[in-house]
Amino acid sequence: MDLKAYLAERRDLVNRALEGYLPRVRGPAFRVMEAMHYSLFAGGKRLRPILCLAAAEAVGGNASEVMPAACALEMIHTYSLIHDDLPAMDDDDLRRGRLTCHKQFDEATAILAGDGLLTEAFRILADAAPRYEGRESVLLEVIQLVAAAAGYQGMVGGQMLDLLAEGREVTFKELETIHRLKTGALLTAAVRAGALLGGGSRSEVALLTAYGEKLGLTFQITDDLLDVEGNAAEMGKTPGGDARRRKATYPGLLGAHKSREWASRLMTEGIRLLAPLGAKAEPLREIGRYLLVRRS
Amino acid sequence: MDLKAYLAERRDLVNRALEGYLPRVRGPAFRVMEAMHYSLFAGGKRLRPILCLAAAEAVGGNASEVMPAACALEMIHTYSLIHDDLPAMDDDDLRRGRLTCHKQFDEATAILAGDGLLTEAFRILADAAPRYEGRESVLLEVIQLVAAAAGYQGMVGGQMLDLLAEGREVTFKELETIHRLKTGALLTAAVRAGALLGGGSRSEVALLTAYGEKLGLTFQITDDLLDVEGNAAEMGKTPGGDARRRKATYPGLLGAHKSREWASRLMTEGIRLLAPLGAKAEPLREIGRYLLVRRS
Repeated sequence: MDLKAYLAERRDLVNRALEGYLPRVRGPAFRVMEAMHYSLFAGGKRLRPILCLAAAEAVGGNASEVMPAACALEMIHTYSLIHDDLPAMDDDDLRRGRLTCHKQFDEATAILAGDGLLTEAFRILADAAPRYEGRESVLLEVIQLVAAAAGYQGMVGGQMLDLLAEGREVTFKELETIHRLKTGALLTAAVRAGALLGGGSRSEVALLTAYGEKLGLTFQITDDLLDVEGNAAEMGKTPGGDARRRKATYPGLLGAHKSREWASRLMTEGIRLLAPLGAKAEPLREIGRYLLVRRS
Repeated sequence: MDLKAYLAERRDLVNRALEGYLPRVRGPAFRVMEAMHYSLFAGGKRLRPILCLAAAEAVGGNASEVMPAACALEMIHTYSLIHDDLPAMDDDDLRRGRLTCHKQFDEATAILAGDGLLTEAFRILADAAPRYEGRESVLLEVIQLVAAAAGYQGMVGGQMLDLLAEGREVTFKELETIHRLKTGALLTAAVRAGALLGGGSRSEVALLTAYGEKLGLTFQITDDLLDVEGNAAEMGKTPGGDARRRKATYPGLLGAHKSREWASRLMTEGIRLLAPLGAKAEPLREIGRYLLVRRS
């Protein structure tokens, strides 16, 4: 399959759905919506929504059926970037080559835009209820798992641990915990939500969740590698930020070569798990392979 | 009825349920949970949960049935206070006589604690699904309405408008919009959520929602009046903050006397709406009357 074309087509599909959920508005009364829109359409890869759609299709569901969850996941991801970039957190001025939300607007607006996106994510999930008539309990399970992945037991907890680890030695185990929570949890939730809403059986949901966990960790290792080896033009941000901030990273702990080997081993295991799903899971396999060679 | 005893008993009930949802933990890995706990148990009146429970009982439901929603509303309220107090927003050092979250911990932790409470609110709502077997769609409707009330079309939008209005003239209509969104929306949602989960008929839900709207506005007018007339010991914060910040307020626009008249008229209308519910709605009537004479 042509992964590049697939990803581009999926990105467009997701972008159109997101535009429907959050149309562009202007004017002072709508400042917070403008900021939400600014960050939501800042050129993201839409990896989480694409994984969610692909997981639904891997169990025989269809993409449009899970679009509300896909869009909710992207809103949550975007909120986390806005808050992580704040001066009190990572203090970043640029994201994907554009000013971060608090630089383009101001800090108060950025905090509110993040809050607004996080809240809207749950609103659109719950508002999708009529699509799931007769299986509302699956939708509620998805809301629960997405919230668990995003909250203090997941992403929020991971960001806290990450901040606390700055400038001090961490063990390999600690690093894995940080990344499993900070990035892995939401990526895994994207795959799991897609599998559930797509109508997957319990065993299909379980194997896709396991794939999602491997993929989440692989994503973070390759993210760390990009920060060491990437170039600014392709990434849209200056590499080396982790080292400047004395962040705990895989290359910092294992070296670049061993980190790359570790990522490759994890993703190979993850892809192998998809065997029972046959051809329907091909996009998920390709996405896994792509993560290992991505440049941005 | 003895309202004071009623409120104290309800507060204890809510506090016990909240403790179950967010037990106290300590240690660096749990810093964000500690901060969430610190702010959640900072001596709040628990008005939103109490309204939610009372609305359920007003339609013949029982309090324990709606406790997850009641606790979720308090978590959302607490998150909004944490973020509103941040230096980039209202920059407050004290809240209810204690250090605000970012003063007790730090800004990054306070942002994350707010994010964590907001997310956890939706998690506990969705996680309550087994209690609502066979009427999951009502629970989804509640999640949707709570999110709408909390997000950019509600509280987040109201806080944005409030910040934008600082230091400039606003009309009475603008002031009402700000308050309807910033404070009214979540109070109304508390009543409406209770009525829905308590099993109210559509007409009962509609009249309780209308009561909730009047109550929300009354609450904000009396809040503004307290900031002009209250005393620090009873309020746990220094009054006069609105004037210092040149915030738009009812006493500022109408004068204290007319504001008090306006609140009294609104609440009398709200209480009159409850007539069809008979004795079961007595706590809601008493809470309405209490708002007009409260000192904190």
